[in-house]
Amino acid sequence: MNAPGRLIGVGVGPGDPDLLTLKAVQALKTADVVAHFAKAGNTSNARATALQFLRPGLAELPLLYPITTEAPASAAAYQSAIQAFFDESATRVAAHLEAGRTVAVLSEGDPLFFGSYMHLHIRLMKRYPTDVIPGVTGMSGCWSAAGLPMVQGDDVLTVLPGTLSEAELTRRFRQNEAAVVMKVGRNLPKLRRALIAADRLAQAVYVERGTMAHEKLMPMLEKQDDSAPYFAIVLVAGRWWTA
Amino acid sequence: MNAPGRLIGVGVGPGDPDLLTLKAVQALKTADVVAHFAKAGNTSNARATALQFLRPGLAELPLLYPITTEAPASAAAYQSAIQAFFDESATRVAAHLEAGRTVAVLSEGDPLFFGSYMHLHIRLMKRYPTDVIPGVTGMSGCWSAAGLPMVQGDDVLTVLPGTLSEAELTRRFRQNEAAVVMKVGRNLPKLRRALIAADRLAQAVYVERGTMAHEKLMPMLEKQDDSAPYFAIVLVAGRWWTA
Repeated sequence: MNAPGRLIGVGVGPGDPDLLTLKAVQALKTADVVAHFAKAGNTSNARATALQFLRPGLAELPLLYPITTEAPASAAAYQSAIQAFFDESATRVAAHLEAGRTVAVLSEGDPLFFGSYMHLHIRLMKRYPTDVIPGVTGMSGCWSAAGLPMVQGDDVLTVLPGTLSEAELTRRFRQNEAAVVMKVGRNLPKLRRALIAADRLAQAVYVERGTMAHEKLMPMLEKQDDSAPYFAIVLVAGRWWTA
Repeated sequence: MNAPGRLIGVGVGPGDPDLLTLKAVQALKTADVVAHFAKAGNTSNARATALQFLRPGLAELPLLYPITTEAPASAAAYQSAIQAFFDESATRVAAHLEAGRTVAVLSEGDPLFFGSYMHLHIRLMKRYPTDVIPGVTGMSGCWSAAGLPMVQGDDVLTVLPGTLSEAELTRRFRQNEAAVVMKVGRNLPKLRRALIAADRLAQAVYVERGTMAHEKLMPMLEKQDDSAPYFAIVLVAGRWWTA
């Protein structure tokens, strides 16, 4: 019987293929199987980013979400379905590990920072040898594309999901600290109202597809419409940079 | 007269040279000058990480802090000296840019996330073409080394400097959100008291030199002594992972 294979969470960074690390590229060269998450009917963004580093004929294991991730997380039916999906995904990955195959799981950004990989990690890390290769986060990609100095010295940075209530977003913005809002999507109008209530709209920057082709980047003051993809990010620097 | 050179902030990641991105390696290959910050009498950590990618004979511009960065940031004399140092550093970098030379400024982690690079960026970005190459942050390196799933779904993450007061640290930890404490150093005893007061000591992980040689990593419950380097990090995951 074979020794079990390794589970490797591979951060592929924010979208520009040149932002993979040397270690990630090396892991993809030697993996036996590459797994990636996507919504059913879509292709994986992480796979698109890493595509040029996947050798021809490499075995792939697509893990397809049965339902949208923008559904309200409190719905019991949603929670039950998504947990069953992660359980089943872990079982499918474990079958390869049992056969001695190394499985690299592609993650957009960093695997342990809002990545789907961590649902496999917590299910499998006690049973199999596991490595995590950190990646450049989507938020780093966005503030670098914007050239926006986010935090320095003794600044505090808070990373908030756009799904928080308007009152809670307002309360957070009023702390006058640096903030990153993830998962903007349909939360954009609420987010704009909270920034106005906290008198911080003029400091906010909207970024869509940071570091990727068709990147969109503008001050929130110039973002007039309410249309934003789920993965858009809003950045609020800790100080008002006038230099 | 030459066209001015480009200023490039290059994130070299958390310390493992294999965690440089392909884009960072490429930038170092083509730069005319490589600049790096260090405390006077020390060598630059970022330079040590990137050393194998610096070609022989490449011009280097060391920028040496006149004073420790662990001095209290409120001291007026400290602020004045440090601002003069950044002004002078920007002038030295600008001389190369004026001569048409591309200057790559090495940054530990990510250039715009607590990096010294941003002091050059805000002084020079209006006058010269500027690029920022994001890097893997020190905190990503640390939680990946620990295999600790930090945030998922609608979690909030707060990045705190260890210099905050004990009362403020306690208040933040009591919010029961994911937290990263930077600049642990001599703040460790205060930080431990705040974690105990918020009943979260058992969830905290101490990491020193994450992803580097001589990495140290242990639950805070097992970190009995009060000795910690300035750049040590404490991680508190958003949920208590028992899987």
